[in-house]
Amino acid sequence: VTDDRVARAALTRLVEPASGRVASLLERLGAPELYRQLRHERIDRGLSTDAAGRAVDIDPERDLERAAARGIRFVVPGDAEWPEQLDDLGHGVEVSGMQGRPFGLWVRGPVRLDSLRRSVAVVGSRSATTYGEDVARGIGAGLARDDRPVVSGAAFGIDQAAHRGALALRGPSVAVLACGVDRAYPAAHRDLLEHHAQHGAVVSELPPGCAPMRMRFLARNRLIAALSCGTVLVEAATRSGALNTAAWTEGLSRPLMGVPGSVTSAQSQGVHHWIRSGAAMLVTGAPDVLEVVGGSGEHLREEPREPARPQDRLPRRHQQVLDAVPVHRAASVESVARTAGIGPDDTLSALRTLLRHRLVEQVPTGWRLGEAARRVPDEPLPST
Amino acid sequence: VTDDRVARAALTRLVEPASGRVASLLERLGAPELYRQLRHERIDRGLSTDAAGRAVDIDPERDLERAAARGIRFVVPGDAEWPEQLDDLGHGVEVSGMQGRPFGLWVRGPVRLDSLRRSVAVVGSRSATTYGEDVARGIGAGLARDDRPVVSGAAFGIDQAAHRGALALRGPSVAVLACGVDRAYPAAHRDLLEHHAQHGAVVSELPPGCAPMRMRFLARNRLIAALSCGTVLVEAATRSGALNTAAWTEGLSRPLMGVPGSVTSAQSQGVHHWIRSGAAMLVTGAPDVLEVVGGSGEHLREEPREPARPQDRLPRRHQQVLDAVPVHRAASVESVARTAGIGPDDTLSALRTLLRHRLVEQVPTGWRLGEAARRVPDEPLPST
Repeated sequence: VTDDRVARAALTRLVEPASGRVASLLERLGAPELYRQLRHERIDRGLSTDAAGRAVDIDPERDLERAAARGIRFVVPGDAEWPEQLDDLGHGVEVSGMQGRPFGLWVRGPVRLDSLRRSVAVVGSRSATTYGEDVARGIGAGLARDDRPVVSGAAFGIDQAAHRGALALRGPSVAVLACGVDRAYPAAHRDLLEHHAQHGAVVSELPPGCAPMRMRFLARNRLIAALSCGTVLVEAATRSGALNTAAWTEGLSRPLMGVPGSVTSAQSQGVHHWIRSGAAMLVTGAPDVLEVVGGSGEHLREEPREPARPQDRLPRRHQQVLDAVPVHRAASVESVARTAGIGPDDTLSALRTLLRHRLVEQVPTGWRLGEAARRVPDEPLPST
Repeated sequence: VTDDRVARAALTRLVEPASGRVASLLERLGAPELYRQLRHERIDRGLSTDAAGRAVDIDPERDLERAAARGIRFVVPGDAEWPEQLDDLGHGVEVSGMQGRPFGLWVRGPVRLDSLRRSVAVVGSRSATTYGEDVARGIGAGLARDDRPVVSGAAFGIDQAAHRGALALRGPSVAVLACGVDRAYPAAHRDLLEHHAQHGAVVSELPPGCAPMRMRFLARNRLIAALSCGTVLVEAATRSGALNTAAWTEGLSRPLMGVPGSVTSAQSQGVHHWIRSGAAMLVTGAPDVLEVVGGSGEHLREEPREPARPQDRLPRRHQQVLDAVPVHRAASVESVARTAGIGPDDTLSALRTLLRHRLVEQVPTGWRLGEAARRVPDEPLPST
């Protein structure tokens, strides 16, 4: 009987990820027996032909040895390093016909997968705008400052910006790939991935050497969503692949967050759609994100409160008099009283109170607005 | 006994708007009796001193006559033109200590107030950005196209942009002022207000001649919110006066909508806050607004759907083969089969199906991606 780990390594090479059918066979048979049956074509034809075609020349023990020699480990359920949050994928969550836990994860880099419980996924368009990249970088940095790992892909645009934001502050950063962890895809990100291998982690459910394929990206997205405790969608056009990660996040009932942008930017359209529908919460930066994913009481953000101004605390009568005092030229008590519609005695008494608060000034020609009242709100002051 | 209309006209000159105490006295006593008691200082001191100070030299009959001569009418509850939606202000809704229906409305311009049931308020910062003004103008135009009146103030920034958007399409537009309808405030908007008086309406609960005051702006905001069937907040910094209109809209349980913008723009901060808290719905333009305020089934917006691509409808097996076909250089059936992990016969049969859909092409050196497959999504295609 093959060892569970070896069988799982073999399965990563034999079967395309995220097949619900395979996941249920795995659950019923266990990895060693599933692997044995696949090798001997016992499973229904559709599955076994694929697998048999590949099974001929694989050698999972050697695969594991060679990987280990190159600093690549294979983490499986039951390992101390196994990120248990991935088990949520085993509860029937399905997106675009895909579902199921990975057989295991191939990992390169010092960041341990069991440390990702507090991680946040930051995803978005490859063809991001400068605005989107700036925001993603800021969120990556803010997460690093809070010692939260950033999880993303390795694509151009938002992915790399989020990573760079985290890495600039030496925060833990994890790139999840749709190909083997030994491959640089896109090639332009070879250095970025190398940096992750040295200081963060590069993760994939596909074994070393595997090429990226469209369906593997969709399967990969479920890992990004499932590893993290929430997903931030920074920019995404209407049919961006990042929306698939958003769908996984929603399917997993993890918080989904969206960064708004200009309504004229196509790159924000997909995000606005998800916020509008109520599926995503609007976040404007790292503080908002930390509040959403933060534990009870942690990072409760202070609401942007209107800065208190002395005149806001005045009784109505005094407000009325204050409103009647001209901004520049001074006015007599009688003139102020007339404008305010209050008797001259009451007006004078109110003016004296206002004077104590420096809300009005007394000058030789009468009364005018004081220093403290000139910090104007966003509504016009009377022109009187 | 003074006529109800005359008494109400007098009250607009005697008492500052939106006082809950006055509103309940009005309800209990009726306008003629309240006016009589105010003139004779029968009401508790605080109120009557103000009123008595003013009551000396007012003449409501003459006020009404002079107003009429200048094309200004006074609309009171019970009139055919009375906008009944304002009565919602009588149900105890209170914001910043203000509450209550207006005594009546002074109106200049051909648009009738009873035609405002479908109107939408568009409000925001005076110090708007070009972005905000563009969006406000677009929403104003979109509302005009749908024959919905635009209601706003007459301030710089969002107010004027929304009006101009509507007026450009000869849509009905209503400016609600915090001063008499015969005054131009701000002075720079004299022409805009004149245009409203000719083609739309200028409205105020304050009688002709009255000056704008800070508290009158707050009272005015409740009219903007209450006249309309929903309010759009286009841009608002954290302590913008427009947020007061938003609070009135919320208090009246009318739909509140917010336009998102760059998270780095101070002018969008207040809006983002309201969307984030769930109080405002995110809208990206007139179509969204019309959907929110639209009657049952009216303006149901079509969701931005992912454009269907032929490869999205393929069975999994064919997808797998398609994913294994290189983009530029051609590959042999055996090479594609190896990459896809599927037997050569099955691969060839799948390639033939894909060929019929022009998803692959056959060239002398083998198979490569076809025209129909090259409309790539926002995820990278395999580099193989």
